Amino acid sequence: MAESAAQSPAPSRVVRSVTVLGAGSWGTTFAKILADAGRDVTMWARRPEVAHEITHEHVNSGYLPGITLPGNLRATSDAAEALEGADAVVLAVPSQSLRSNLERWRDLLPADTILVSLAKGVELGTLKRMSEVIGEVAGVPETSVVVVAGPNLAKEIAQGQPAAGVFACGDHERAVAVQEAAFTGYFRPYTNTDVVGSELGGACKNVIALSCGMAAGLGFGANTVATLITRGLAETGRLGVKLGADPMTFAGLAGVGDMVATCASPLSRNRTFGERIGKGETIEQAQQAVGGQVAEGVMSCRSIRDLAHRCGVDMPITDAMYRVCHEGRDPATVGAELLGRQQKPERM
Amino acid sequence: MAESAAQSPAPSRVVRSVTVLGAGSWGTTFAKILADAGRDVTMWARRPEVAHEITHEHVNSGYLPGITLPGNLRATSDAAEALEGADAVVLAVPSQSLRSNLERWRDLLPADTILVSLAKGVELGTLKRMSEVIGEVAGVPETSVVVVAGPNLAKEIAQGQPAAGVFACGDHERAVAVQEAAFTGYFRPYTNTDVVGSELGGACKNVIALSCGMAAGLGFGANTVATLITRGLAETGRLGVKLGADPMTFAGLAGVGDMVATCASPLSRNRTFGERIGKGETIEQAQQAVGGQVAEGVMSCRSIRDLAHRCGVDMPITDAMYRVCHEGRDPATVGAELLGRQQKPERM
Repeated sequence: MAESAAQSPAPSRVVRSVTVLGAGSWGTTFAKILADAGRDVTMWARRPEVAHEITHEHVNSGYLPGITLPGNLRATSDAAEALEGADAVVLAVPSQSLRSNLERWRDLLPADTILVSLAKGVELGTLKRMSEVIGEVAGVPETSVVVVAGPNLAKEIAQGQPAAGVFACGDHERAVAVQEAAFTGYFRPYTNTDVVGSELGGACKNVIALSCGMAAGLGFGANTVATLITRGLAETGRLGVKLGADPMTFAGLAGVGDMVATCASPLSRNRTFGERIGKGETIEQAQQAVGGQVAEGVMSCRSIRDLAHRCGVDMPITDAMYRVCHEGRDPATVGAELLGRQQKPERM
Repeated sequence: MAESAAQSPAPSRVVRSVTVLGAGSWGTTFAKILADAGRDVTMWARRPEVAHEITHEHVNSGYLPGITLPGNLRATSDAAEALEGADAVVLAVPSQSLRSNLERWRDLLPADTILVSLAKGVELGTLKRMSEVIGEVAGVPETSVVVVAGPNLAKEIAQGQPAAGVFACGDHERAVAVQEAAFTGYFRPYTNTDVVGSELGGACKNVIALSCGMAAGLGFGANTVATLITRGLAETGRLGVKLGADPMTFAGLAGVGDMVATCASPLSRNRTFGERIGKGETIEQAQQAVGGQVAEGVMSCRSIRDLAHRCGVDMPITDAMYRVCHEGRDPATVGAELLGRQQKPERM
C-alpha cells in the first residue's frame, strides 16, 4: 500500500490528545474510554448546552443517562477549538451526514492527525464505505483512516462492562497508536488490517438486526434468529470478499461479534424497529413509536442492496428487508419465501 | 478419501426408512422432522412406557411436552425390531454413553446403512470426536458417518419454527441422501464435507455457552456475551484447523449458528448452568437445581482442554471454564484474568 507508506508516521507514534466530533451515545462512550485510558480528550457537541453539561456536570443526560463521565473529559461546540492540536480525530456522526459534516471540518483538521471513524454504513447514492467518504473529503488516502468496529453497545461499555473492539487500518502503526490510546481495564481493542471487511460487518449488521427483530415480532425463537445471523454473516462475507475483504474478518469481532451483540440485544434500535414491523406496524408507525427516527437498517438495506447488485452478489436477507421496508411487502410472506429457497450445500 | 470411496453408495441413493436410537428431546424432534418429510420412521426408547406413549398417544411428555408427534412415527424399546431394514440409523444418545450403547447395537445394524450422529462432544479419556467413536465401534470408515450440526434448539424446531441444519459427511452423496430425507417446510438442511469442523463446533459451543451464562450471572450484558461468543469461536477454530477442519465452517451454521443459538437462548442447559455458577452457586448446588444432571459443558471443558493441550493450541476460555469447574476457582477472578491478557492483533 504505497499510498499509506507515503505519509507513514514515525515508529511508535503516540496519541496524547484526541478530539471526538459528535456527542451521541457511542461518541461519548468512546471519549470516556480514551479519557479513562489517560488521554487528553475534547469532544465537540453541536448544541452548546450538551457541551456545557459534559464539561461542567460530567454527564450527557440525553444520550447516556446515569453515567458519570471522567473529570478530564471536556466538550465545546466550537469545532476549531475542539480540533486544535489533536493527535487523533474521532468522527462520531451518523453515516449519512458524515460527508456534509466533514466538509465543514476539513480545513480545521491538524496536519497528519490520525482520522478515526465510528460511523457504520454505506452512503446512499455513492455506495461508498465511510473510510472512502472520509478519504475523499479530507483528501487523505482511505488506507490511513482507522475504523472502529466490533460488539459495541455504547450503554454497556459506558457502564464499564468488559468488551472488545477492532481497530482496522491499512497502516498497522496507526491502528496500534489508537489501540494504545484506548486500552483500559474494561475495553480491549484488537488491531486488524482489513478495513473493507470491518466496515461492511458494521454496516450490514444493522440490516440483519432488523430481520432478527422482524422474526421475533412474528413469534420465532432463538434458532431462527441464529440462522438469520449466520446466513446474514454469509451474505455479508460474500459482498465483502467481492470487494476485497478477508473472509476471516467476518468470523471475528467486527463480523460475528458486532452482529451477535446488535441482533441479540434489546438495546439495539434496529432490532426493536424490526420487531414492531414483524408485529404488523407500518414503517411510519414504528418510526413514530421510537421517537421519529427511522432505524439505520431501513436506510442501509437500500444502499447495501444497490452495492450487492452492482457487484453481482446474492444477498437474500438484505433483499427481503428491502422488499418489506421499501416495497411494502408483508414480513410473513417474505420470510416464507426466504425459507423456501432451494436446498443446497452451505456456502459462505 | 479412498476409505469412503470403497463403500460409496450408488448414485442418487434414497433414504426411505429411518431408525432413531434415543428418545431425548433432540432425537424425538429429529424423528419428527423425518416423519414430517414423509419418511417411515421408527424410534428406539430405552423405557417401554416412553415408546408406548410415542406410538399410541403421539407425544413424548417427558422431553417434548405439548408437542403432537406425527401419526406415522412409531417407537419401540426393542432395538433389533427398531433397526430392521433401516436405510439410515440416527444415533441420538448422549456423547459420553455413545460408545457403550453402540457396542450393544453394533451387530444389529443393517449392512451399508447410513449412520447419522446427533451426539456432540469429545469423549473423555480417548479425546475422540463422535464420528471417530462411531467409526471405531461400528467398524466403518469415520468418513461415512453423517454428522448433524447447526442451531438446533429442539423445542423450537418441534414447534415448527424455521431453522437450518448442517449435514456433514466425507461422502457427499450420503449427506445429500439424508438431506433429502429431512427437508421440510420448517427445517432447511445444508450439506458440508467438513466433519471435523462441524463436530468441534457442536462440542465446543457447550463450553462457551457455560462461559456466557457465567458472565450473565456475574451481571454482564450483550457486549460481553458477544465477545465471549466471538473469541470462543476463534479458539474453537484454532483447535479445528489444527485437526484439519476448514476455518470457514466456524463462520457457518455449525459454528456461529449453533454457538449463537446455544449461548443466547434461555432454553440452553449449559447457559442456565453457567448462570448459576456466576451467581455464586457451587457445581453441586447448580447440579441439584437443574434436576441432578451436570451440564455437558462441565464435562466437555475437560476433554476439550486435554485435546487442546495435546495439539498445543491456546484455548483461554475453555481453560478458564476448566479452572472454575474442576479447580474450584472463583468465576469473577477468572473473568478478570481473561480480560487482562496482553493486547494484540485479533487472530482466529
